[in-house]
Amino acid sequence: MTRVALDLLGGDCAPESVVDGALIATERAPDVDVVLVGPVDLAERLLDARGALGRFPLVAASQVVGMDEDPARAVRAKRDATVRVAARLVRDGEAAAMVSCGSTGATLASAVFTLGRLRGVTRPALAAIIPALDGPLVFLDAGAGTEATPELLAQFALAGAALATVRLGIVAPRVGLLSIGEEEGKGDELRRAAYTALAALPIDFVGNVEGNDVPYGAKMDVVVADGFTGNVLAKGLEGAASMLTELLRGALTATPELRAAADVVLPALEAATASTSPDHFGGGVLLGVRGVVVVGHGSSSPRSVASCVLVAAQAARDGLLPRIAESLSDLLDRTRAVAAT
Amino acid sequence: MTRVALDLLGGDCAPESVVDGALIATERAPDVDVVLVGPVDLAERLLDARGALGRFPLVAASQVVGMDEDPARAVRAKRDATVRVAARLVRDGEAAAMVSCGSTGATLASAVFTLGRLRGVTRPALAAIIPALDGPLVFLDAGAGTEATPELLAQFALAGAALATVRLGIVAPRVGLLSIGEEEGKGDELRRAAYTALAALPIDFVGNVEGNDVPYGAKMDVVVADGFTGNVLAKGLEGAASMLTELLRGALTATPELRAAADVVLPALEAATASTSPDHFGGGVLLGVRGVVVVGHGSSSPRSVASCVLVAAQAARDGLLPRIAESLSDLLDRTRAVAAT
Repeated sequence: MTRVALDLLGGDCAPESVVDGALIATERAPDVDVVLVGPVDLAERLLDARGALGRFPLVAASQVVGMDEDPARAVRAKRDATVRVAARLVRDGEAAAMVSCGSTGATLASAVFTLGRLRGVTRPALAAIIPALDGPLVFLDAGAGTEATPELLAQFALAGAALATVRLGIVAPRVGLLSIGEEEGKGDELRRAAYTALAALPIDFVGNVEGNDVPYGAKMDVVVADGFTGNVLAKGLEGAASMLTELLRGALTATPELRAAADVVLPALEAATASTSPDHFGGGVLLGVRGVVVVGHGSSSPRSVASCVLVAAQAARDGLLPRIAESLSDLLDRTRAVAAT
Repeated sequence: MTRVALDLLGGDCAPESVVDGALIATERAPDVDVVLVGPVDLAERLLDARGALGRFPLVAASQVVGMDEDPARAVRAKRDATVRVAARLVRDGEAAAMVSCGSTGATLASAVFTLGRLRGVTRPALAAIIPALDGPLVFLDAGAGTEATPELLAQFALAGAALATVRLGIVAPRVGLLSIGEEEGKGDELRRAAYTALAALPIDFVGNVEGNDVPYGAKMDVVVADGFTGNVLAKGLEGAASMLTELLRGALTATPELRAAADVVLPALEAATASTSPDHFGGGVLLGVRGVVVVGHGSSSPRSVASCVLVAAQAARDGLLPRIAESLSDLLDRTRAVAAT
């Protein structure tokens, strides 16, 4: 049994979507157990309404960090915030992983504060799995931080390469630096310095990649970006996919002939695009903290919440954390050895 | 007759795609005239092969700025570069506008060097028209620069608002700042300072917008970004659209039934997405220089080259330049008046 601590109050449609997500996840994977972290009476009422009272263990937490609060300050002030209580469950071994679809900043702050950082990590990054045409790729930082340095981008490159190996099974992942223009020297000052830093790492660095390379994924398995650009692009790609799907569905209702064709076409399309759906991969993984922490979208549907829970459980079972810690540590040692020669 | 100077050597498929684009543009719009700027013997050979010798006036230019060169340095060194000669034609009134699908940096450097900047402009921006679901929007900077300041983003906001009024006919355009998180205070240091700067401008500033808002365009008519983030997102959105189109076409060939349905569905889809095609809007417009300058994609097809030529001609005929100069100047005066009170 793998137990996942789930933030009852995180997300735009919480707590309902969270409870529904927990039910979907545990139906799909009977070996996964969920602890709901939040106000106990609220959880009981919601479970009761779904005929599922007693289905999940409940852990009390009375506070929530809002999207408009300064995350670090709010987390420090709110000892009983759902994300802090969930992180404590992970720290104390009462849960194998935690999931929140609330404020990314609050989850990050709780994780750093309660679980601590892995060796060699200055600041954790949020790694998303992007469903590219050529197969899934690791994309980081998708928004854990906003300011970056060449050294930080180099850490992201190492952590991202480790995740691609552990989670996607790619032995020697190709790592690209998100920039504008392919040639070395293209991009801003940060990217020019980061290019040199990444080229010195013991990874398969393929150089600069551009925005339009990401949906295809042909050139690389890992994309390294600062958290600001990474968040803008990750959200932009998702927006483009959902906008085009909407446009497509609209076009297929225009005439009776098109509606008839839609009955054949839409299931085929859904099958074709299933592997490119964000639901398929669940939320982002916080890389660099001492615990398995998955961050879902604020707008997560019950299905997305369930995906996050299953990703977290799978990551915990696969030993994602020790394997990433080892890879990072190993890579850091080799980097230092290279730097010393 | 509106005459457009066209860089014969700009673009991955130049010079062939450029000559074909010139032919398409002038067939579509008989009141548009193209001057081909490049090696005269090369232009003559290509035109001859298409049975179009003598169709366009030719202006000799022997040098080209490569994608791997430092644009400013290369433009300064190459007096006979196609982009410099084209800019001189605009400066001297021999062409109403110029178009290049080569290096954006080289076109920018030539325009600033030869044509100069408009009053109040520190650095020009590349404004793209993004075909959002709710209608086209102005998106800048799409990659003219890489470093930005709050003051520069404020200039982009003014220039973008002026372009939305002139080109899209929106009287009071809503201007959004591309950031991560909607709330004031979200984003990096640059965005937090820019928020204050944009809020003080005499424009309809709607606050922060996010990556996923851009494909929908529901909240705003103008999106302000630094050139690095803007370029990454603009390219990312295009990549997503072309990747999903590819996926769709692939899915519609899987079975005979789907192929039959595709015959009905694909034309309907093309009609539905025509207004969201980048071809529809041609290239980006360089805002802030004293001339109409359109920059196409490096990968421009003949049809895209033609769109760029037609956009440039239309912009020249509409008096885009004096109208933007006036709007900018007017807005700047009002801004200064506001700042002085």
